[in-house]
Amino acid sequence: MKLASLKHGRDGQLVVVSNDLAWYADASHIVPTLQAALDNWDQLKPYLELLARELEHDAIPKERFHEHDAAAPLPRAYQWADGSAYVNHVELVRKARGAELPESFWTDPLMYQGGSDDLQGARDPILLKDVAWGCDMEAEIVVVTGDVPQGVSPDDAHSYIRLVGLVNDVSLRNLIPDELAKGFGFVQSKPASAFSPVFATPDALGAYWQDGKLHRALMVDLNGQPFGRAVASDDCTFDFGVLIAHLAKTRRVRAGSIIGSGTVSNRDADGGPGKPISEGGRGYSCIAELRMIEKITTGDMTTPFLKVGDTVRIDVHDEREHTIFGAIEQTVVAG
Amino acid sequence: MKLASLKHGRDGQLVVVSNDLAWYADASHIVPTLQAALDNWDQLKPYLELLARELEHDAIPKERFHEHDAAAPLPRAYQWADGSAYVNHVELVRKARGAELPESFWTDPLMYQGGSDDLQGARDPILLKDVAWGCDMEAEIVVVTGDVPQGVSPDDAHSYIRLVGLVNDVSLRNLIPDELAKGFGFVQSKPASAFSPVFATPDALGAYWQDGKLHRALMVDLNGQPFGRAVASDDCTFDFGVLIAHLAKTRRVRAGSIIGSGTVSNRDADGGPGKPISEGGRGYSCIAELRMIEKITTGDMTTPFLKVGDTVRIDVHDEREHTIFGAIEQTVVAG
Repeated sequence: MKLASLKHGRDGQLVVVSNDLAWYADASHIVPTLQAALDNWDQLKPYLELLARELEHDAIPKERFHEHDAAAPLPRAYQWADGSAYVNHVELVRKARGAELPESFWTDPLMYQGGSDDLQGARDPILLKDVAWGCDMEAEIVVVTGDVPQGVSPDDAHSYIRLVGLVNDVSLRNLIPDELAKGFGFVQSKPASAFSPVFATPDALGAYWQDGKLHRALMVDLNGQPFGRAVASDDCTFDFGVLIAHLAKTRRVRAGSIIGSGTVSNRDADGGPGKPISEGGRGYSCIAELRMIEKITTGDMTTPFLKVGDTVRIDVHDEREHTIFGAIEQTVVAG
Repeated sequence: MKLASLKHGRDGQLVVVSNDLAWYADASHIVPTLQAALDNWDQLKPYLELLARELEHDAIPKERFHEHDAAAPLPRAYQWADGSAYVNHVELVRKARGAELPESFWTDPLMYQGGSDDLQGARDPILLKDVAWGCDMEAEIVVVTGDVPQGVSPDDAHSYIRLVGLVNDVSLRNLIPDELAKGFGFVQSKPASAFSPVFATPDALGAYWQDGKLHRALMVDLNGQPFGRAVASDDCTFDFGVLIAHLAKTRRVRAGSIIGSGTVSNRDADGGPGKPISEGGRGYSCIAELRMIEKITTGDMTTPFLKVGDTVRIDVHDEREHTIFGAIEQTVVAG
């Protein structure tokens, strides 16, 4: 089953979307919003699934689904906690500034709490007030949880994953060093994130969803050119079961919490840092990583961060090259 | 006007509470939840205020208000961002571990994003799974905002403060060093926070609310003994206008965001670190601060963190010694 929220009020209008993302059926007679569905998931999921089957079988009135009409599936959420499952990404960022990677980073996930009061739709612009802030995309996988008990094990945590989707975790790179130096995590350096038009239940992903990882390439384009094709299940040190268990160690986690994978990042086939797509590599899911490679190899970071007019596209295809979640496609706008 | 949410479902039932906290009137015929009221504040506030006046004038049916029936006014929120307005507290914590306070800490607020999916009521227990985690209270002032535009100035930010209340920002002190060393802020070391039974509009606080600060003492008791009597408007380096503007620098902040002051902390009258109440000082709003003083003065931290059975009480009185927000009173329970 695939779900989306059409733009409507603060929380959107819940719709069921066809597997090919061509059509939708209004679901608001069952439950008005995705958060309300997650609040009462076990009871409501069968009704939503029935609607989804009827939509696939053309048994009910349907409307054309346009990705640009979609708000974030959860236009605001009670939690947005972003992990750093791709330790390769963390290692590169640290290497570029000459910092060692602590050994514990391979066993103890990094995670930060993000702002979740204002989550953007897939076609919403990236509002950038000051280009000197160093705006970057970060393409990631996310899951949405049900009610998770405190102390859940990584294995058991998988069963609380209700939905899977994509995020562009927009980052203001030049604000990060000073903010992290204060020691309390990200506040100003993480403006509003944008989410894929559609979130899918794990069972709708079939074999693409295994062991709490998405077994597909995350396609990141910058200004219409392929920028990243990292495979989300490769070099993924922490699956979503581990990330959820990390978050739930000292308190329960409530329904509708969004948990992110961190920037998807692959090593090169030779085991070294990833190469650009133009050199036959899988590229990058954020600009910062390419800049790190540039610094390590040439001493200079030459690729600029995002400027007004730049466009970022994030998508995942199935084997038939059909989009699974719809594409995040955002243009940077002076704001 | 004073508002509370009686325990009911995930978001509580909105009630208007009399100024003396003795009575309440159901407000759910106007708007079912506090979040929904904040979503449409300008339109709904006059109706809620009318109800509050009728309650004060005994013009409508009323019910006894019991603080233990109250959930957190927002039992879940779309944002919980906690500042550190009392730099004295930060300086002490750092001094105890031999770290200098960066000069910028006096001009650039510390702030972290906290989990807001599960906010506790004033009488809910503090569930503690492992006493070795070093459980501590942190008594703070909070405000709830309306929709705040990006880039708001500190002066203008005051007008977006809708409600004022108290929080016990429970901290697991022994998990903090390792977590902060990772650089991404607090996740596991901040379990669910608890809030005062009632939040008040700034105008209901009269002269106690000035310049974005609460001009009253924050009364913290530990196991029935006075532990802290710090005045929230003293040694407050950053008022709530500054804290809101800090959060809104790079993105808008949406209605229902809760912003905290950080642990309230006063210097001693002689300008040095605060003294215990038993020595004529104003005491402390968290145990860690007393332990820092102990370490600085004797080399040893002797006061233990919270254990099962301990009780924390946080309250603010008016001049007639009547509670303003109701008391947070939590007992530590094995969880």
